[in-house]
Amino acid sequence: MQRTKVIDALKRTDYGSDILVEGWVRSKRGSKGIFFIALNDGSTIKNIQIVGEDQNFDEATVKLITTGACISVEGKLVESPAAGQAVEIQATKIEVLGACDATYPMQKKGQSFEYMRQHAHMRLRTNTFGAVMRIRHNMAMAIHTYFHEHGFFYFHTPLITASDCEGAGNMFQVTTKNLYDLKKDEQGKIIYDDDFFGEQTSLTVSGQLEGELGATALGAIYTFGPTFRAENSNTPRHLAEFWMIEPEIAFMDQEELMDLEEDFIKYCVRWALDNCKDDLEFLNNPRLDPHLIERLEGVLKETFVRLPYTEGINILQEAIKNGKKFEFPCNWGDDLASEHERYLVEEHFKKPVIMTDYPTAIKSFYMKQNAPQGEGSVGYKGCVAPGPTMQGTDVLFPAIGEIIGGSVREESLEKLQGEISRRHMDTTHLEWYLDTRRWGSCPHAGFGLGFERLILFVTGMQNIRDVIPFPRTPKNAAF
Amino acid sequence: MQRTKVIDALKRTDYGSDILVEGWVRSKRGSKGIFFIALNDGSTIKNIQIVGEDQNFDEATVKLITTGACISVEGKLVESPAAGQAVEIQATKIEVLGACDATYPMQKKGQSFEYMRQHAHMRLRTNTFGAVMRIRHNMAMAIHTYFHEHGFFYFHTPLITASDCEGAGNMFQVTTKNLYDLKKDEQGKIIYDDDFFGEQTSLTVSGQLEGELGATALGAIYTFGPTFRAENSNTPRHLAEFWMIEPEIAFMDQEELMDLEEDFIKYCVRWALDNCKDDLEFLNNPRLDPHLIERLEGVLKETFVRLPYTEGINILQEAIKNGKKFEFPCNWGDDLASEHERYLVEEHFKKPVIMTDYPTAIKSFYMKQNAPQGEGSVGYKGCVAPGPTMQGTDVLFPAIGEIIGGSVREESLEKLQGEISRRHMDTTHLEWYLDTRRWGSCPHAGFGLGFERLILFVTGMQNIRDVIPFPRTPKNAAF
Repeated sequence: MQRTKVIDALKRTDYGSDILVEGWVRSKRGSKGIFFIALNDGSTIKNIQIVGEDQNFDEATVKLITTGACISVEGKLVESPAAGQAVEIQATKIEVLGACDATYPMQKKGQSFEYMRQHAHMRLRTNTFGAVMRIRHNMAMAIHTYFHEHGFFYFHTPLITASDCEGAGNMFQVTTKNLYDLKKDEQGKIIYDDDFFGEQTSLTVSGQLEGELGATALGAIYTFGPTFRAENSNTPRHLAEFWMIEPEIAFMDQEELMDLEEDFIKYCVRWALDNCKDDLEFLNNPRLDPHLIERLEGVLKETFVRLPYTEGINILQEAIKNGKKFEFPCNWGDDLASEHERYLVEEHFKKPVIMTDYPTAIKSFYMKQNAPQGEGSVGYKGCVAPGPTMQGTDVLFPAIGEIIGGSVREESLEKLQGEISRRHMDTTHLEWYLDTRRWGSCPHAGFGLGFERLILFVTGMQNIRDVIPFPRTPKNAAF
Repeated sequence: MQRTKVIDALKRTDYGSDILVEGWVRSKRGSKGIFFIALNDGSTIKNIQIVGEDQNFDEATVKLITTGACISVEGKLVESPAAGQAVEIQATKIEVLGACDATYPMQKKGQSFEYMRQHAHMRLRTNTFGAVMRIRHNMAMAIHTYFHEHGFFYFHTPLITASDCEGAGNMFQVTTKNLYDLKKDEQGKIIYDDDFFGEQTSLTVSGQLEGELGATALGAIYTFGPTFRAENSNTPRHLAEFWMIEPEIAFMDQEELMDLEEDFIKYCVRWALDNCKDDLEFLNNPRLDPHLIERLEGVLKETFVRLPYTEGINILQEAIKNGKKFEFPCNWGDDLASEHERYLVEEHFKKPVIMTDYPTAIKSFYMKQNAPQGEGSVGYKGCVAPGPTMQGTDVLFPAIGEIIGGSVREESLEKLQGEISRRHMDTTHLEWYLDTRRWGSCPHAGFGLGFERLILFVTGMQNIRDVIPFPRTPKNAAF
């Protein structure tokens, strides 16, 4: 007989038919010679109920049907008399494919996330992590589908790189050198001629610059791949290895970029609501996050506010005048802290905000420079800033803060080189990037979305280590 | 005016309408006061023709419209009198967004692939690489769509790992240690306590083992991510950094696995034929590969042969008896060489072959062991082998050789441990993997597909460095 997945079995109405299901025992209870098994096969958060009479089965077999055991069940599909489930299976044959003894670490209910992280390879078999991983899959699918339908090409930028323009100091070195026999030159510098790539290499911190090469050839691309930061931060928001999505689009201006950011993120949230109903309903509970679905629906209802940084600072200053206390300062030129972003989003506007036109000093060299006006500059919708600004467009979300970091890119070779030299940057490994501005330079824009940030928002989970199967953090490369 | 992409402009029939297109000049020619521009924006391999009269434009502007320049064109969409194109644009306004001088390396036609590899950041703007990259995107989309529709979950396995079960010796080390100040213990061994992860780590050679954790929890998963091999092989078939797809399915047996492999790969090839027609037609030419489309269609027409290794050896031995010469030996127990695989696929069967039941000695420890029979074993459809075999199921393709490597996995803890100790493997970093067999072990199977191998097959390209944007090979980590 062909196996039926639990997700499909639960939809069947051909009562009386023979059926074969296979999966893991979530629980077993019994009374008066009858036992009930809640069986799950990972296809859905829902279990299917298996009903059996002790007398029809070998005692040794029944004993082996414990929490975590893997079993195969043949029986008849019947209407369930129990509440909350349409069907159940009256078992005629049960085979224990893999027993599970009392050492199984995921046996008890209500174990802490901290405990489960220590058994990350087995936590995937729990309700919460099953739900999170199915939603994670769905968000990846939403992203690929969105870009495909909008004419973007998935573009694989390299992971190992000899370029290091932004991440200096926070990079993982990649080497095949024998560390017991490091050759050095006369000045005592390590010689990399015999390393695999013939020079010093590390893991990428962003695929954006290579993505720009793709966009200025194929028109519109997106990356979706692993990215690395060797920051020694033990926080619920940092991973050393995480997945990033970085679309990059030729001929796009700031207004169009904001349209794209808003449309894209709403598409993802809508996909979750449309396709992950069961899992979201499970996560939307008092123990985890009772306002999850409400928050997701809230994002879809609202038009995002488009707010120049300079106006944002004014709002924050006004709030301070009216008695609002912040831990960190927020004068023009300061990088906004999470508390400022959340005040604007959650208290002032009560909707997502796209912040634009940041001071040049707090943004990256490649962003498009706004037109100068005296000491200041003119940005989005004519907003005048007291200093030079760049066309950044970050999306700020409730609960999460910055979820997208985007910008128009500076397409003028001269301005870009000016900014690079103002920052005393080494261009040795940047000449290929500057070539995009040398030959057929083109206005373009793009943004970056940390995939795990999106999953945190969509699942309501609190710790980034709980939304990726095997988190990489300081002192932790297990599994 | 809103920009129209070239791919959409070419489909428009609202002749007389105003239109705005932007892109890069592929070529410009002129005579008698009229000029013709072939404009491409990367959305399609096809160019749109722009027609202008010299007298309507500033002479300086017209001079800047050179190959590689980026321009913006407003004009009227009209029916084209020229052959091979339905529409063209009568330009009324042209703006040069980015000029392109004679130093532009992609200026000339017919440059060698070797030359273009040296300018890999600019080769994306050529016809061939544009076509390959659009097909690459489409194959990724086919893969995600196939698995999503079949109830698989996309599962992100870690890139940085402390486990090293298969790839010993071929791995890239990942470290944040200061190589100028390596602490060693009394025995002279490097101390990794202060490395980022507190132990020695490297880049993964496969996500399969972690994928099995996913499959035995979620039922069916697939990975699609970068994979690394530090092999010092300068061949047209090897990359140090490549993308792999590794599906893993609980409750799947060998026959079902072969069904999946065949159905999956045909789906991808069909997707290419259905969605990449223009690009395939471009690549299907005497200079590149005149039999490309024919070969793709051939794969769809045929039912793959399912051939036990032992029968394959018999066929090869028979061929040798009949005068066929091979460079390498092919006695039972030998790992087949590419020449053997291609003989079976291209000459003997003239269709793709799924080879099963390989000798244990040439396959990996985790594969399911066939039932022993005396000194031999019994495999697929009762085929008796003279020695112990494992349930491998590799797909062999014309032109490419092995395109998929798959197997049923050994689910018995005892047999798996037996094989591990026969191979004298260190289990220190494998205990988490063995846990899947300790608690609720489950029959399962899976396969691996090198993404670039698939792209080679589907594009007909000959060198693997030409099917990924920025190839990583010995001495080459540029861009």
